[in-house]
Amino acid sequence: MNKIKVAVIGASGYAGLELVRLLVRHPGCDLAALTSLEYPGIPFSQVFPALAGIVDLSFSPASGSEPEKIAAGAEVVFTAIPHQAAMGIIPRLLAKKGCKVVDLSADFRFREVGLYEKWYQAHTAPELLTEAVYGLPELHREEVRRTRLVANPGCYPTCVILGLAPLAQARLLQPDSVIADCKSGVSGAGRQTLLGLTFCEVNDGFRAYKVLEHRHTPEMEQELSRLAGTPVQVTFTPHLVPMSRGILGTLYASLTEPRAEGELRELYRKFYQGHPFVRLHPPGSLPDTRNVRGANFCDLALRVDEGGRRVIVLSAIDNLAKGAASQAVQNFNLMVGFPETMGLETPPFLP
Amino acid sequence: MNKIKVAVIGASGYAGLELVRLLVRHPGCDLAALTSLEYPGIPFSQVFPALAGIVDLSFSPASGSEPEKIAAGAEVVFTAIPHQAAMGIIPRLLAKKGCKVVDLSADFRFREVGLYEKWYQAHTAPELLTEAVYGLPELHREEVRRTRLVANPGCYPTCVILGLAPLAQARLLQPDSVIADCKSGVSGAGRQTLLGLTFCEVNDGFRAYKVLEHRHTPEMEQELSRLAGTPVQVTFTPHLVPMSRGILGTLYASLTEPRAEGELRELYRKFYQGHPFVRLHPPGSLPDTRNVRGANFCDLALRVDEGGRRVIVLSAIDNLAKGAASQAVQNFNLMVGFPETMGLETPPFLP
Amino acid sequence: MNKIKVAVIGASGYAGLELVRLLVRHPGCDLAALTSLEYPGIPFSQVFPALAGIVDLSFSPASGSEPEKIAAGAEVVFTAIPHQAAMGIIPRLLAKKGCKVVDLSADFRFREVGLYEKWYQAHTAPELLTEAVYGLPELHREEVRRTRLVANPGCYPTCVILGLAPLAQARLLQPDSVIADCKSGVSGAGRQTLLGLTFCEVNDGFRAYKVLEHRHTPEMEQELSRLAGTPVQVTFTPHLVPMSRGILGTLYASLTEPRAEGELRELYRKFYQGHPFVRLHPPGSLPDTRNVRGANFCDLALRVDEGGRRVIVLSAIDNLAKGAASQAVQNFNLMVGFPETMGLETPPFLP
Amino acid sequence: MNKIKVAVIGASGYAGLELVRLLVRHPGCDLAALTSLEYPGIPFSQVFPALAGIVDLSFSPASGSEPEKIAAGAEVVFTAIPHQAAMGIIPRLLAKKGCKVVDLSADFRFREVGLYEKWYQAHTAPELLTEAVYGLPELHREEVRRTRLVANPGCYPTCVILGLAPLAQARLLQPDSVIADCKSGVSGAGRQTLLGLTFCEVNDGFRAYKVLEHRHTPEMEQELSRLAGTPVQVTFTPHLVPMSRGILGTLYASLTEPRAEGELRELYRKFYQGHPFVRLHPPGSLPDTRNVRGANFCDLALRVDEGGRRVIVLSAIDNLAKGAASQAVQNFNLMVGFPETMGLETPPFLP
Repeated sequence: MNKIKVAVIGASGYAGLELVRLLVRHPGCDLAALTSLEYPGIPFSQVFPALAGIVDLSFSPASGSEPEKIAAGAEVVFTAIPHQAAMGIIPRLLAKKGCKVVDLSADFRFREVGLYEKWYQAHTAPELLTEAVYGLPELHREEVRRTRLVANPGCYPTCVILGLAPLAQARLLQPDSVIADCKSGVSGAGRQTLLGLTFCEVNDGFRAYKVLEHRHTPEMEQELSRLAGTPVQVTFTPHLVPMSRGILGTLYASLTEPRAEGELRELYRKFYQGHPFVRLHPPGSLPDTRNVRGANFCDLALRVDEGGRRVIVLSAIDNLAKGAASQAVQNFNLMVGFPETMGLETPPFLP
Repeated sequence: MNKIKVAVIGASGYAGLELVRLLVRHPGCDLAALTSLEYPGIPFSQVFPALAGIVDLSFSPASGSEPEKIAAGAEVVFTAIPHQAAMGIIPRLLAKKGCKVVDLSADFRFREVGLYEKWYQAHTAPELLTEAVYGLPELHREEVRRTRLVANPGCYPTCVILGLAPLAQARLLQPDSVIADCKSGVSGAGRQTLLGLTFCEVNDGFRAYKVLEHRHTPEMEQELSRLAGTPVQVTFTPHLVPMSRGILGTLYASLTEPRAEGELRELYRKFYQGHPFVRLHPPGSLPDTRNVRGANFCDLALRVDEGGRRVIVLSAIDNLAKGAASQAVQNFNLMVGFPETMGLETPPFLP
Repeated sequence: MNKIKVAVIGASGYAGLELVRLLVRHPGCDLAALTSLEYPGIPFSQVFPALAGIVDLSFSPASGSEPEKIAAGAEVVFTAIPHQAAMGIIPRLLAKKGCKVVDLSADFRFREVGLYEKWYQAHTAPELLTEAVYGLPELHREEVRRTRLVANPGCYPTCVILGLAPLAQARLLQPDSVIADCKSGVSGAGRQTLLGLTFCEVNDGFRAYKVLEHRHTPEMEQELSRLAGTPVQVTFTPHLVPMSRGILGTLYASLTEPRAEGELRELYRKFYQGHPFVRLHPPGSLPDTRNVRGANFCDLALRVDEGGRRVIVLSAIDNLAKGAASQAVQNFNLMVGFPETMGLETPPFLP
Repeated sequence: MNKIKVAVIGASGYAGLELVRLLVRHPGCDLAALTSLEYPGIPFSQVFPALAGIVDLSFSPASGSEPEKIAAGAEVVFTAIPHQAAMGIIPRLLAKKGCKVVDLSADFRFREVGLYEKWYQAHTAPELLTEAVYGLPELHREEVRRTRLVANPGCYPTCVILGLAPLAQARLLQPDSVIADCKSGVSGAGRQTLLGLTFCEVNDGFRAYKVLEHRHTPEMEQELSRLAGTPVQVTFTPHLVPMSRGILGTLYASLTEPRAEGELRELYRKFYQGHPFVRLHPPGSLPDTRNVRGANFCDLALRVDEGGRRVIVLSAIDNLAKGAASQAVQNFNLMVGFPETMGLETPPFLP
């Protein structure tokens, strides 16, 4: 098989590292270049000795004319850099004919530039927003196959949207009732050096943060509203768990009409039929972030209260995997015509 | 000062251990006896070498006529044993004139025997339910002062009730809107030997459990309904956090009338005035379970959404402290006429 | 390619689970059967929901005539059961012509039955000890290729022997000077339900155990003595680290003759040339168990004191991987003529 | 009782925080001032909300003429700032007649200025070295009582010296045989913002650092040599444990003459008689850092090999307590004539 040349821009963060771990063993591609602002010229395996003997590349600098060089040498580029930086580089990559991009930042996730600018800042490449596809393959598989620019979803939105999509599409979601109480491992904050992320400030503690003001909220609302055909509001509360990876979303909603648990389970089963990465728990069993660690799965379970009026959905993903890097590879597979699961078959990592 | 003789029945569990840690340094009492089903005759400090040189007692057996002996030798008895076992022993303790009991089990927490029997089992001492006082001093301080039997609240109920009491009393709580999404450290499950509690099954993972079926639900509903003057329903979801101690409750409710955040903060401030163990966070700051570790505090913060319709309260306690042992000591202090904070002054343990 | 049918006896412990994770994705084999004493008849993915959609087998019972049935249906059998149980079953497996066994217990690790019986108990299949090969491929690769019974090494011995083998073989090890101070994650104790392994008894603590009496000592001494050509004594101290996986050995020895650090590094480089799973750290860099997590690597570094008299070797493995399951797969690859690294290429799991 | 006014210079690090936690509840003193370079003018309880309602002071700036002001307002000053900074400030404090200082830095721990300058940098107040007392009260209690300047020992040296002192003094320690393999929780690195200390870089991992080059080595050697009456060399290897607090030292030494375990235990018992903070484990039991968490204890156990030639001592302390702040309070008590245990009676914190 002819291998596809790929590059990772921003390969020294946790999402970038996870991309490299996956791509270096992906049977359909060759790693052509890795960039880093912090470690230009330094061997990847010096920064990450875990990959010694596995990854032989050194980091490229990512500045100057490097983006053009990278686009020249790679057919698909993954950008795992902060928002704002991404929209500065991506038009330069796409300027090369045939180049495809999977962007892990927030820059191309919104259909309306106004929404982006309300939560982030001025957009410098709004012309790409119409062709960018929101890369949640369970909702947009066909569009992903045809686009050259995928906006890979945020970690929390992946967890929440997959957890509520079947209800939204079935018009069962009362639009002002949705509460997404989400809990994330620390790697969700990235490979950042902050006092609040040091071991002694996190270990053996639990806290909420950015209550009512987290930027992932409009992303959830955009996709759920689209599915529901009406504006859906999400009350979203993120929390920090003393663990490295994983997100559990506990999602609450009122139903527009009462439904039995079994009916909803059947609804979910049908909705996700043919989607190999969403697993529905059998009755009596609940998701645990440990069961999806390092894998591209989203595990779901649901409970309905006695009256059939309020539903609770539990949704578990690995924030670095289905919430970032492995979902990016899933999108890549679709964009280049590979089987959707290619290179994503390693079982979850436990214990 | 004349010291009060106290005993702990069930001193080898985590709540019992925490009671011993507090009582052995409490300036107003003397530890007269400690019992354990598992370690009869064995020195306390052999089971818990941390307390070597501090606690010199050995465990008493707790069987046969031991309860009567304990009642004979102690003025106040703490029972830190499972429900059902507690109601078997407590009437025997109270048979001694003047004996007072702080019970950490669920057996005397309900005012209606039917409610208890629906969630637990048949009650064998229902006659004591009318005199038992629900030992949340912030709500029942005066009754606690006068009773001989305090039913120390559950850990989750302490967190949730303190978090919502001001709203309930002010009739601001829409009675069917309350969601209590709670996260607990592992010691909440007690000092039990279960596969699901072993390190490798908990570490670096996060999961919900007993969704819609946890026995602490009716306790929350009893107290919030009493305050609200109308039946309040609570949708309660407990979760397990990979940490030893701490509970954070993220509490959601719709308001019966819109309110600004500042108004609610003022409501809370007044409600908890004169209650030294409830601390209200200033705007912009949020509770962390680390800040209450090992201490009798309940830390609260609140946020209101744009329309002033939905409130989010964050409530943090230490499940073994304010959620069990230190709250029991707070009740003890009130029952015997000591200052409420006596023996509870050690600052939170961090980092 | 014709796939080889394999079975795992004892697939519900942590080493068994890790074997299943590896074998189910191994391109050269088919999982024919999994047994468990505790979960006979139950689907593997019910016990381990992480593997739902990946492993479709149910557990076989492992009792009665099951061993013969398993041997009939599998060309290679992995036994991941306790010592003593293993030697009861393995002769029955080998009775089938052509059947090969990789045993993860201690039963066939010793060349002298007396040594085994001193540390364990009476041996019931001593006749197999002469043909069994100690499955440390870096020392015994050719014998492993030719045998039908591999005794897969213990986790601590793997760490310590690989760390000191070059010195032993070069006669540089002063035989009574060796100290192996080893630290292991909790999964090393297996998937056992013990109070001392529960989260609250392990979290945020560190302790030594079985000082001077751990059964892995004679295994280290057997192999190091063989290499050194003289009896080598090991003072071995195991410790428990609050983490799930990983062993770090800090190994101290006096040298028979002074050597510079560079000389020793060169000695190690040559010794492990052609052995893809041993990685020598460059000067200035030290192993971390995180860098080998989930992978078959042993990472080594060494330091020599000023006089060139005392050497400190740091040796890191994953106790469930190179210390158990992935080393078993490495042995399997050699026994059946596959490339040594087949199915073992997933990069270490981090962060 | 007349309370003694105390100040803490450097109260926003972990040792400073621990000092504040202890001093605010110490019955014999009043907190007069707290300084911080990073948070001048900010309320202590804003930086540490755990102490809200307990500590009402704001941080003083610690620059300009602040040291003189602090000395004017406090009888005893604790300096919990980095070495080099300490020796700049302490002479200014001692310039006030009657002022006493407990210094937690390394600046005054050495008797010979040359040794300090070899491992640290030029010393700017060498004239104070002769009057400074190495504040390990188990060795220097009487000198501590009489000095105005205590050099509070390092965390690792406290653990190692207490573990080997009885052997050194009895001339049983073979001077070139000592190996101190020590494992520390992360707070030992201080409240620093470093990538290597972030949760995801520490969690579920274990590593050695600064092998053969850690600055605590000469401190151990100074005290053990003094006791032994001959130069003792220590091979010291520090490791990082994924926990917040605690140090376990596994100490190896050859004996100059063979001794039975019981004889050595008796030697230790006598040596530490009258020292309330050193606890000797009974045979069959081993220290765990959890058992000393938050307390001023040093827990010891020892094992001797079959020939009575090699001894292994296990020594556990809390690095922030006996390894820093609570030992500083113990020294303070001695310096001002209080009972040695005053304010240090809170039992270890567990689970």
